[in-house]
Amino acid sequence: MMVQPRVAAHAQPAAHLSAADSDPVKMGWMVGFPPPPDKRIRWADGSHFNPPSNRWGLSHFHQFLPHVSIRRGDGPVSELPRAERKDIDAVTFKIASPVDLSEAAKEAIALFGTTISWAQSLDANYTDSIVVLHRGRIVYERYRGVTRPETQHFLMSVTKSLPGLLAEILIDEGSMDEKAPVSRYLPELKNSGFGDATVRQVLDHVTGVKYSDAFDDPNADIWHYAQVIGVLPRQPGFAGPDNLYDYLASLKKEGEHGKAFGYKDVNTDVAGWLLKRITGQTCAELASERLWSKLGAERDAYWVVDSAGFEICGAGIGTTVRDLARWGETMRLGGRFNGQQIVSKAVVEKIFAGGDPDIFAKGHYGPGLPGWSYRSYFWVHPAEGVIMWKGLFGQGMYVNPRAEVVIARNCSHWNPSNSALDATSLPAYAAVVDHLTKAK
Amino acid sequence: MMVQPRVAAHAQPAAHLSAADSDPVKMGWMVGFPPPPDKRIRWADGSHFNPPSNRWGLSHFHQFLPHVSIRRGDGPVSELPRAERKDIDAVTFKIASPVDLSEAAKEAIALFGTTISWAQSLDANYTDSIVVLHRGRIVYERYRGVTRPETQHFLMSVTKSLPGLLAEILIDEGSMDEKAPVSRYLPELKNSGFGDATVRQVLDHVTGVKYSDAFDDPNADIWHYAQVIGVLPRQPGFAGPDNLYDYLASLKKEGEHGKAFGYKDVNTDVAGWLLKRITGQTCAELASERLWSKLGAERDAYWVVDSAGFEICGAGIGTTVRDLARWGETMRLGGRFNGQQIVSKAVVEKIFAGGDPDIFAKGHYGPGLPGWSYRSYFWVHPAEGVIMWKGLFGQGMYVNPRAEVVIARNCSHWNPSNSALDATSLPAYAAVVDHLTKAK
Repeated sequence: MMVQPRVAAHAQPAAHLSAADSDPVKMGWMVGFPPPPDKRIRWADGSHFNPPSNRWGLSHFHQFLPHVSIRRGDGPVSELPRAERKDIDAVTFKIASPVDLSEAAKEAIALFGTTISWAQSLDANYTDSIVVLHRGRIVYERYRGVTRPETQHFLMSVTKSLPGLLAEILIDEGSMDEKAPVSRYLPELKNSGFGDATVRQVLDHVTGVKYSDAFDDPNADIWHYAQVIGVLPRQPGFAGPDNLYDYLASLKKEGEHGKAFGYKDVNTDVAGWLLKRITGQTCAELASERLWSKLGAERDAYWVVDSAGFEICGAGIGTTVRDLARWGETMRLGGRFNGQQIVSKAVVEKIFAGGDPDIFAKGHYGPGLPGWSYRSYFWVHPAEGVIMWKGLFGQGMYVNPRAEVVIARNCSHWNPSNSALDATSLPAYAAVVDHLTKAK
Repeated sequence: MMVQPRVAAHAQPAAHLSAADSDPVKMGWMVGFPPPPDKRIRWADGSHFNPPSNRWGLSHFHQFLPHVSIRRGDGPVSELPRAERKDIDAVTFKIASPVDLSEAAKEAIALFGTTISWAQSLDANYTDSIVVLHRGRIVYERYRGVTRPETQHFLMSVTKSLPGLLAEILIDEGSMDEKAPVSRYLPELKNSGFGDATVRQVLDHVTGVKYSDAFDDPNADIWHYAQVIGVLPRQPGFAGPDNLYDYLASLKKEGEHGKAFGYKDVNTDVAGWLLKRITGQTCAELASERLWSKLGAERDAYWVVDSAGFEICGAGIGTTVRDLARWGETMRLGGRFNGQQIVSKAVVEKIFAGGDPDIFAKGHYGPGLPGWSYRSYFWVHPAEGVIMWKGLFGQGMYVNPRAEVVIARNCSHWNPSNSALDATSLPAYAAVVDHLTKAK
């Protein structure tokens, strides 16, 4: 039943199926009661996570992992008016040069350097569901594969931006000092690699904690982490820890904090622990109280928990794409949505201001993303006034207040790498923004 | 980490704590981030299920087990008007004689034979949450321990009545023939103990399938079943099957079908399989479409699934106590609630008519429940015009249309046995019904 965590096609570009060939309806995953044995998707063999069956799995992650609710509350659903634009599908763009990609990954982007249409980009990105808002109205909405409007798609690292936002809210309120060492709040981390990291460093992924998220390395920490939290089954020989509290406290330091951008899921989990310690609430309770219950969301979101009830902050949330768009719209509007100031303007402005560009430039993602930086688990382009949240296999949020555009997207790409997917995402978003704003 | 499934205090009456002493707030379960090691509740050691920590666990079952949603849909919440009756707490009743209990279980009911008040009965039943409706208005509502109105308490076998109701709906519509052998729809069961059982026999717990739910026997099938479905962790030596489809097909026959009432979780899982095979929908989709989305429920309910996505029909649903009461009110009103005929009157009347009283009398529960019978996973007293649904550790629904009373209750008793809990439940319900109807 157990398998080695398969590394997705990043390292094996020749092995992947096209979007059309991997369409989960065409593949026939989980059809019938019971589904045929070769069409079953299971947590125990990693097929809920690995391509090509992630095309079904990411839309049904909730049925594989225990989770709690981020409650929507009792209020009415907030209206997202419609003004569909059929012309968007024909918008074209040139696939960008992903400068920081391995040769193998570049090779795998078959359309690299060519011009494609927005409609074609849905396949290029293995898009499952997407909503584009312009001036608060739904101008484009598609559900593909096994998704429907009510589908709670797993967000992967898009998750991170929620604890990030909540942390900024606590800082803004004065409940948490961003300059303080995290060990002031979490003495359990004093002797760990996080011991002398500040809250700010944890929030901006600039800790020197020893942790690798290199998906193409089967020995990278991320595969151990995935077993600690239970997202992947524990392999023979797994020796723990069996929960995030103990795991975070066990991590060591390998460099200096504050020197370079280094994307590490565990930073976000420390942020989540901070939220809980400071508020006395679970992350899901806090997220509901401060955001989700005010959005007029269509559904509760869910948040996967570990064996100790710790919400996985690195990648744990599932929600509908329209509710994701509501959150994006809140950010676009300076924190005000659904008739109320949900997040203070100061918090939103701070996030849009971005992090330290020099530090970002020194990190792995720097060469591929000139002009970008990172703050509180948001990717930020201050000059363009754009923020994004991004997740493995292509999940993404794009918020551009100047253009009055919000794009929420769920995907199940064979390629986990955001760097690779930026090549077909960023120019697509820019082209649609250009199209929508010109047309006015 | 693994433990033998502990048999709750039925076999060890001296070991239990009082309701006051086992109050989950007083016990301090899962307080803090992390909770102290001796206050953690985990699936891996069974503490989510076993007393006394079930007083926390049953209100948080969702965070231990994968589950799907029974969607409430997008409509508004249906109003339950309030007309609170403070006089209910003082209603008294005499604890009944549980004639079919073991001596140990009788001994454990400390108040046996004495007169107590309704208020005292909340402790006697280890009540977590309760709602009493009279003429559609909430006359009594309490949340104790760690429950709140939004808490999705695990219903244990109260679950069964939902697939039972759905099955009767399909029969009423002509989609399923209650006289047909289940193997007509499920050829996979042809060579199993269910092979020559009819749909009707499966729905009324009168199959001769070899399966024991004797909680006080550590070797009873129910403990193996709990590991198959994942509600309890798999013990060393567990050899499968790892999903309900295969497990149900593996069961043997040990007697004749149709001879005596025999309470077996697996009958209900066969019913769930029938629902899926006949409709092509999952049980949760069907339950949402036919019932939950029409109730004006406050929340989605959840349904625990096994490794193959099979909703556990023996015991798998969690919901709020008010949403449970809405379902009860629907049954009280002949299927009409929230401005629409949700369930046909014929289906409701058929359930209220009950099953074969002679066959029920021959079963284990017969001597203790004179006048009762069983139909489609509802306990029925035709002469009183009452139906109940009941679950382990004291979950219960009581619907009395003549008295215009509905009672929804969640508990986390140390004693799993419904027979034992009937002693403090049935006379309590009767006394409150008497009080409410007299007072008009």
